[in-house]
Amino acid sequence: MSDISVHPSVHQESTMLSCISRDELILQFQTTRQLTVHLCQPLAIEDYVIQGCDDVSPPKWHLAHTTWFFETFILMAANKKYQPYDVLYQYLFNSYYQGAGIPYPRHQRGILSRPTVIAVLKFRDYVDHEIMEFINNASIEILSAYYPILVLGLHHEQQHQELLMMDIKYNYSLNPGYPQYLSTKPHTTKQSINKLGWVNMTGSIVTIGHNNDSFCYDNELPVHQHILKDYCISDRLITNDEYLEFIESGAYQQSDWWLAEAWDCIRSNSWNAPLYWQKTNNEWHTFSLSGMHKINLYEPVTHVSYFEADAFSKWYGARLPTEHEWEHFAKTSKQSIEDTNFLDNGIYHPRAQISHSYQIWGDVWEWTSSAYSPYPGYKPLPGVLGEYNGKFMSNQMVLRGGSCVTPYSHIRATYRNFFAPDKRWQYSGIRLVCDP
Amino acid sequence: MSDISVHPSVHQESTMLSCISRDELILQFQTTRQLTVHLCQPLAIEDYVIQGCDDVSPPKWHLAHTTWFFETFILMAANKKYQPYDVLYQYLFNSYYQGAGIPYPRHQRGILSRPTVIAVLKFRDYVDHEIMEFINNASIEILSAYYPILVLGLHHEQQHQELLMMDIKYNYSLNPGYPQYLSTKPHTTKQSINKLGWVNMTGSIVTIGHNNDSFCYDNELPVHQHILKDYCISDRLITNDEYLEFIESGAYQQSDWWLAEAWDCIRSNSWNAPLYWQKTNNEWHTFSLSGMHKINLYEPVTHVSYFEADAFSKWYGARLPTEHEWEHFAKTSKQSIEDTNFLDNGIYHPRAQISHSYQIWGDVWEWTSSAYSPYPGYKPLPGVLGEYNGKFMSNQMVLRGGSCVTPYSHIRATYRNFFAPDKRWQYSGIRLVCDP
Amino acid sequence: MSDISVHPSVHQESTMLSCISRDELILQFQTTRQLTVHLCQPLAIEDYVIQGCDDVSPPKWHLAHTTWFFETFILMAANKKYQPYDVLYQYLFNSYYQGAGIPYPRHQRGILSRPTVIAVLKFRDYVDHEIMEFINNASIEILSAYYPILVLGLHHEQQHQELLMMDIKYNYSLNPGYPQYLSTKPHTTKQSINKLGWVNMTGSIVTIGHNNDSFCYDNELPVHQHILKDYCISDRLITNDEYLEFIESGAYQQSDWWLAEAWDCIRSNSWNAPLYWQKTNNEWHTFSLSGMHKINLYEPVTHVSYFEADAFSKWYGARLPTEHEWEHFAKTSKQSIEDTNFLDNGIYHPRAQISHSYQIWGDVWEWTSSAYSPYPGYKPLPGVLGEYNGKFMSNQMVLRGGSCVTPYSHIRATYRNFFAPDKRWQYSGIRLVCDP
Amino acid sequence: MSDISVHPSVHQESTMLSCISRDELILQFQTTRQLTVHLCQPLAIEDYVIQGCDDVSPPKWHLAHTTWFFETFILMAANKKYQPYDVLYQYLFNSYYQGAGIPYPRHQRGILSRPTVIAVLKFRDYVDHEIMEFINNASIEILSAYYPILVLGLHHEQQHQELLMMDIKYNYSLNPGYPQYLSTKPHTTKQSINKLGWVNMTGSIVTIGHNNDSFCYDNELPVHQHILKDYCISDRLITNDEYLEFIESGAYQQSDWWLAEAWDCIRSNSWNAPLYWQKTNNEWHTFSLSGMHKINLYEPVTHVSYFEADAFSKWYGARLPTEHEWEHFAKTSKQSIEDTNFLDNGIYHPRAQISHSYQIWGDVWEWTSSAYSPYPGYKPLPGVLGEYNGKFMSNQMVLRGGSCVTPYSHIRATYRNFFAPDKRWQYSGIRLVCDP
Repeated sequence: MSDISVHPSVHQESTMLSCISRDELILQFQTTRQLTVHLCQPLAIEDYVIQGCDDVSPPKWHLAHTTWFFETFILMAANKKYQPYDVLYQYLFNSYYQGAGIPYPRHQRGILSRPTVIAVLKFRDYVDHEIMEFINNASIEILSAYYPILVLGLHHEQQHQELLMMDIKYNYSLNPGYPQYLSTKPHTTKQSINKLGWVNMTGSIVTIGHNNDSFCYDNELPVHQHILKDYCISDRLITNDEYLEFIESGAYQQSDWWLAEAWDCIRSNSWNAPLYWQKTNNEWHTFSLSGMHKINLYEPVTHVSYFEADAFSKWYGARLPTEHEWEHFAKTSKQSIEDTNFLDNGIYHPRAQISHSYQIWGDVWEWTSSAYSPYPGYKPLPGVLGEYNGKFMSNQMVLRGGSCVTPYSHIRATYRNFFAPDKRWQYSGIRLVCDP
Repeated sequence: MSDISVHPSVHQESTMLSCISRDELILQFQTTRQLTVHLCQPLAIEDYVIQGCDDVSPPKWHLAHTTWFFETFILMAANKKYQPYDVLYQYLFNSYYQGAGIPYPRHQRGILSRPTVIAVLKFRDYVDHEIMEFINNASIEILSAYYPILVLGLHHEQQHQELLMMDIKYNYSLNPGYPQYLSTKPHTTKQSINKLGWVNMTGSIVTIGHNNDSFCYDNELPVHQHILKDYCISDRLITNDEYLEFIESGAYQQSDWWLAEAWDCIRSNSWNAPLYWQKTNNEWHTFSLSGMHKINLYEPVTHVSYFEADAFSKWYGARLPTEHEWEHFAKTSKQSIEDTNFLDNGIYHPRAQISHSYQIWGDVWEWTSSAYSPYPGYKPLPGVLGEYNGKFMSNQMVLRGGSCVTPYSHIRATYRNFFAPDKRWQYSGIRLVCDP
Repeated sequence: MSDISVHPSVHQESTMLSCISRDELILQFQTTRQLTVHLCQPLAIEDYVIQGCDDVSPPKWHLAHTTWFFETFILMAANKKYQPYDVLYQYLFNSYYQGAGIPYPRHQRGILSRPTVIAVLKFRDYVDHEIMEFINNASIEILSAYYPILVLGLHHEQQHQELLMMDIKYNYSLNPGYPQYLSTKPHTTKQSINKLGWVNMTGSIVTIGHNNDSFCYDNELPVHQHILKDYCISDRLITNDEYLEFIESGAYQQSDWWLAEAWDCIRSNSWNAPLYWQKTNNEWHTFSLSGMHKINLYEPVTHVSYFEADAFSKWYGARLPTEHEWEHFAKTSKQSIEDTNFLDNGIYHPRAQISHSYQIWGDVWEWTSSAYSPYPGYKPLPGVLGEYNGKFMSNQMVLRGGSCVTPYSHIRATYRNFFAPDKRWQYSGIRLVCDP
Repeated sequence: MSDISVHPSVHQESTMLSCISRDELILQFQTTRQLTVHLCQPLAIEDYVIQGCDDVSPPKWHLAHTTWFFETFILMAANKKYQPYDVLYQYLFNSYYQGAGIPYPRHQRGILSRPTVIAVLKFRDYVDHEIMEFINNASIEILSAYYPILVLGLHHEQQHQELLMMDIKYNYSLNPGYPQYLSTKPHTTKQSINKLGWVNMTGSIVTIGHNNDSFCYDNELPVHQHILKDYCISDRLITNDEYLEFIESGAYQQSDWWLAEAWDCIRSNSWNAPLYWQKTNNEWHTFSLSGMHKINLYEPVTHVSYFEADAFSKWYGARLPTEHEWEHFAKTSKQSIEDTNFLDNGIYHPRAQISHSYQIWGDVWEWTSSAYSPYPGYKPLPGVLGEYNGKFMSNQMVLRGGSCVTPYSHIRATYRNFFAPDKRWQYSGIRLVCDP
C-alpha cells in the first residue's frame, strides 16, 4: 500500500449508483476528504514539507495528490473544457500514471517548498467544491458513468490516509528530537497474554476472491477455486516478547534462517531488530507516534520486513500462511471485525491481544508467503486507470487484514495489500502456520 | 540456474543405489566430469580468468567449484581424516554455502589469477581420483549413504556446464573483437515457418510435481493437485521476427506494456532489444558463440528478461503461462524429448522450429508467470546441503523446458529453473497463453 | 565559502578591543545578526526547511548554526556554568567542528522539520540577548579575551549570509514553478560594452597577504614575498556573450580544452552550459532570484565551475590568473571598492560593466589557477577553533574579489575564498590573463 | 605516474639527435623495450589478464599500450600509408588520448581475455621491428623530426615499467594465496638506525626547473626563480617504526590531524594503516613482492597516501616540504644518485637507511605539500601529444625523488611525479620539514 503500490482499479459492475442518493454520496465524499486533513492537524507547517526517504512522501504531497486524482479522473475526464486549477500541479502531483503525463520524480518530492501548505489546501477546497457541484448537477447518465471512479477515488484517499500516518511516523523517527504526533502515552499493560495456540483448519477446495456487490479492487477478482491441504494457524499474532527471543537467540547473525536476498539485506543495512527499535541502556525501546518509549512485550511485533517474518517463522519451526490459507481462515473464523483496532480508533499503534481474539483484523498487516500475482483470469480495466492494473506484480508479497492505521471501512477478507519483501515502514506483523 | 540459484537438494528416497553398479557409477561420474573440461577446449588460458560482470564466473572458477563440491560434501564428509587438497581452495571455491564457511566474495572471482588453470586441473584430477577410489572401496553402507550426494553432485556439475556456456558467451560478447567459441557459422535458413497457432487445453484438477523414482530437486516436491481452467497455449515459441515487430512498434518507448519495475529497468539500462542484439547499418545483428552475425528471423527469440517476455505477451494480447499450465501441457503433449536441441548437440544456439514441433524441450527456457515459491508441504533437507533449499525463493520467476546449453539428461517436465526477472544472460525465450 | 569551507580562524593581534566601545560592539552585533533574518523575509515557512542537494543547507539551519557558533564559542567557553539553550541543538547545528562533538550528518539537514522556524528564531533571540548581556557585563579582561572570537563570529555570520543567498537560489531553481525571491525583474540593458582589453602588469617581487591591523582570516597570513613575471590581465570580466561563443563553438563536446577530471565531470553530469542556464525555444534563459528569464549578454558570466573557467581560458588562448597576480592587480589598480555590486545593494545578481570599471570587486568571485595551499610559515591557531585551520587545503581552488551576495564589509584584496573545482552554485566568474 | 597521469610531453630543444648514432639509438630502444618484457618473466599467463581495481591495468595491457604508443606516434605519424597492425588495437590500447580516438574504457581492461599474451608479444615484435627499420632507414630529416618522440616513447615505457611493478604487486595482494613475484625473502636487518636529524637550509631566491640539454617533461619547464625562507629538512625518510607510533597513538581515530577530505576518506575506507599492512596475531605484517611477512621497523614507511603523510607530519609537529624546498635540497645536498635503490637493483622494495644517506633518491617517492600546478610561463606542446600537457593539473599532489621501482635513468632533481591525495599503491613515503 505504498504510493507506488496503489492499485486504482475498480470492480465496475459491483458498484451500483442505484443504492445511494446524491446527498449521501456528497456526505461520504466530504467525510472522507475531511478526515485526511484532520489527520494532519497535529503537524507544524514544516512537517508537511519533508521526505525522510524515497519511499515516503511529504504530507502536503499526499494532500495534493489525492486532490489531483479527483481533478484528473473526474473533472477533466467528464468535462473536456475543464481547465486544471494549476497546470503545474498536473505534473507535480501525478504519482506514477504514465498515461497522464511523465510524473515529477518521486524521490524529489521533499525539495519542493512550493506550493505551500496553504496553497495546497486552497487546491483541495477548489476541487472539493467542483466535485460536489458535479455530483449535484451532472446528468444521471454522466454521474452513473463516473460513480465507480468517484468511489475508487475515495478508496484511493483512504489508502493515502494510511500512507500519511506511516510517512509522518517515519519522518518523525529520523529527527533526533523524536517529535510526538500524539500527546498521549502508549498503553503499557504489564499483564501477560495467552500462550500461542493453533487452530486446526481442514483442507478442501475453497473459494478465493471477492464475490458480492460491494466495492473491491480488481486484483481481488475473479472469484476462483483453490485446493487447500489441512493446516494449523496460530490463534493470535506474534508478540514483541516472542520476537525478542528470536533476536536474543542470535538469529540476525545466523545465515541459516534467512533467504539469500534477506541475508544480503540485513547485513548491508546492519539490521538487528525491527524498524524503529533501538537499544538504550541495555533495554529495547521503540519509536511510535507517542515518541520513543520502552517496548511493550505483549503487543504484536510490527515494522518487520517479509525477510524478517519469513526468517522468524523458520526459526520458530513453522512458516507463514499462504494468502489462500489466510483468506480461508478469515472467512471461516467468524470473528467480528468490530472491536478491532483501526485508524478510526485514533490509537495508531497495535494493541496487545484482548481476551481470546484471533487478531485477524486491524492492528498489523499480516505477511503471507504468497507473491503478489494475478488471479487466474485476471483482467485489467480499459483506459488510463486500467493502464496500471497489475503494474506492481513483480517482487511484492501479499499482506492481509489491515492495520491500526487502516480505515475500518477500507478492509475486507479478500483485500490484498502488497509490499516489496524488504519494506517495513508499514505496520506489518507475523502470523504463523504449521502443517499437521 | 545462475550459480547463486543452484539448489543442491536431493530427493533421497527416489535415488536407489540398488539400480546401478559401482562401475556404472564411475562411468557416469567420469563422463560428466570430462564433459565440463571438454566444453573448455576452445578456450585460451586467458579466457579462463575473466569475469564480465558479477553474475558470471570465470571458467576456471566453475572447474574448481564443481570439484570443491565433491571434495566437501563427499570426501570430507565421509572421512573426517581427509585433508583438503588445499585449505585455501575450501574458501575460494565455496559459492554460497554459509554453512561451509564464509565464501570468497562472488564479484571478485575475476581478480584471482591463481590458482592457475593447470593448478585447477590438477585439483580436478586429484579429487576425481579420490572419488573413484571412494566409489570402489567404500563399504556398501557408506556408499549407499553418499550415493544421493554423488548423484546430486553430477546434476550440480550439469548445471555448471550450462552456466559455463552462458558465461563464456557473456564474457566474449564484451570483447570488441568478438571472439568465436565455435568455428562454424550459425544456420541461416531463409525458409519461413508456420503462423503461430494455439493448442486448446481443457481445465481440470491436475497433478503437479515429480512422482517417480528418478532423481529430482526438492523444489519439485511434493506432488500435489492444482486446479486449472481451460487455456490455449501457443504451438511454438515466439520468433525473432515476431519480437522484432514488438520492437519496431515502439514498445520499448511505451510505458503501457511494462511492469513498474520493468519500466525502471529498461530505462535505467537503456534496453531497446534483447541482450546481445545490436543494430549496425540499420540491420539487427546478434552475438552468438559463432561471433557477431545478422539475426535469423525464424529462430526463437532468446536472451530476453522476464520483464520483456511479460511486456511482449501483453503487447501481443496474450499472457505468459503459469508453471502449472506449462507442466500440464508438457506432460500431456506427448511430444518426444528426442530430436531436440540440447547441449549434447553441440549447436549451443536455438534452432528454428522443425516441421510441427511444439518446441517444448531444449532451445530456450520458457518464462512462466509463476513466482518461484515452495510447493504446498515443501520440506527442506536436513544438514548443510539442506541449509539452502528454498534460500532463493524471493524475487525469482520460474522457467521451464531446458535450453540449447542444458544437458539432455538434466531436464524433465517437472524441472523448475528460476531467475530474477531482470536477468537475461541465460537462453530464455517466450511461449504464450491466452484464455478461451 | 561553502559551509564546509568556512575557516573560523582569526588574526588575534590585529583585532584590538581598544578601538571600539561596548556600545559600538553591540550595535555591530545587532546589525549583522538582524541582516541574516532580514534576508529571509521573502521566504515562506516551507522555504526554510528544504535542502536541494548535499552542498546547500536549509535556511533555518543557517539561522540556527550561526547562533550555535556564538553560543558554543562565546557563551559556553566564557562561562563553564552556562547551560545550552537546548542540548540537542548543540548536535544538530554543529557544522563540522569535530572538536565540539560529532556533527549531525550534513546531507540530512533537509529532513529535519523540527525545530520549527519559530523555535529557531527564539533560539536566536535568546542567544543574542545573552551575548549582549555578556558584552555589557563581562570584565574587560574577559571581554578582551573573547573579542577576537566575537569578531570572528560576525565574519562567520557574513559568510553564511552569502551562503543563504546561494542556497535559496539553488533550492528555488529546482522547483518547476520557479519561485521568485525578488519581485523586481532583472536589468536587461541592451547596450553593448567595451571590447576586452588588457592591462600590462610589470613583474617584480610583490608582497602577498594581509599586513595591517584589521581583521583577516589566518589563511591570509603570514605576509610574504612572491616573484611575479610580467603579465597582462583583462580589463573586465568575461561576459555571457563571450561565454556563449565558447558554448556555440562546440567546446563542451571537444575534449581538447578540458582537464581530464573536467572532461569526466561534464560528461557524467551532462553539462553544456553554466549552472541555471536552460535553452527554451532556441534561446538561452537563466534562473536568478527574479525567476527564469533570458540571459543578458553583457552581464558577467556566472555560476561556472573552475573546470569551465579553465577550459574557457584555454579556448580563448589565455589562462586564469594566479592568486598572486590577482592580488597584485587588485592592490595596484587603485579602483575604488565603492560603487560596486555587493550584497548591500540588494540586487543579488551581477551587473554589466559600468563605464570602464575593471570589475575587480563584487559581482562575481573570480577563479584563480591557484590551489588553496598554506602560505609559507602558515600557523594554525591553538584550541578548538584552530583545529580546522587549513582543514580544507586539498582539492580546492582559490577565488578572489567577492560577489553580488557578499557583504561589502566582508571583502578585501587579500581575501581567499575557495571551492572545489566542480562547484558552481556560488556566484563565480572569469577574468583572464595572458603572457606578454 | 599512474597511467592516467602519464605526461607525454617533451623538451624538444634539449634532445639532440647529433649526440647519438643510429646504432646507439637502436640499442637504447631494444634495451628499454626488453626490460619491460623481462619484468614480466615471473608471471603466469593468468597474471597478465587481471585488473585488481580501476587504477591498475593488466600486465598485458601495459605491454600492448607502450607498443601502441610507438605505433601511433611514430609509425603512423611518419608514414601516412602505414597500416596499423590491428585496427582494433588502436582502440583497445589507447590509454586516454582523446585526440587519437575515444579510448576503450579504462575500468574494463580486466575483462579482455583477447588479444592473448602471445598475440600481444607478437604485436610488440612487429612494432619493434618496424621501429628499428625506421631508425635505420629514415632520412636524417625525418629521423631528427621524430627523435624527440622516440625518446619520449622510451621515457613513457619506463613509466610503465614502474606502473607494471606497482600493478603486479596490487593484483597479487588481493589474492588470499599471496603469490610471490620474488623467490627471495626481504631483508630483515634488526639493526637500529640513526635518530631523525635535521639539515638546516638557508632561504634565498632559488632556481626551479630543468635547465640543461638532457630530456625532461614539459612540466619541469620553464626554469624560474622562487623565494624560499629558511627551513630544516629531515636527514632521512620516516621509518615504519616512527609510523607505527603514529598508528598506536590512535591517530587514525582522532580527527585533529586530518584534512576534512582525509577524514572522510579514512573513515569511509576503514583505513587504519598503510596499504598492504595487516595485523595478524597482534603483529603487523605487510605484503611485498616477496609475499606476506612482518614489517621491518627500520625501512622507510611506504604506500601511504598524501592524506596520511600530511596527517603524520602534523602529528609529528612538522610539515611536508614544498616541491621547491625538496628540489633545492636535492640540488644542494650533493648526495650521489649512485648506490641507491632503483628498479635496476631488482630489490623492488625500499631499503633501510645505509650509513648517513639522506635517502633522497630511490626507495620511495616523497610527498610534497605542493599541488601539481603549471610553472609560470608553462607552455603545452603543439599537436596531439601536446593535447594532454597539464591535463592532470587538478587535485594531484607532487612527489619527488623516485622509488625502488623507478628506473635509475628515469629520475632527476627536477622530476615531478604526481598522484591524487588518496592514492597509495605507488611506493610513496614521507620526508619532513620544520621551520627554524
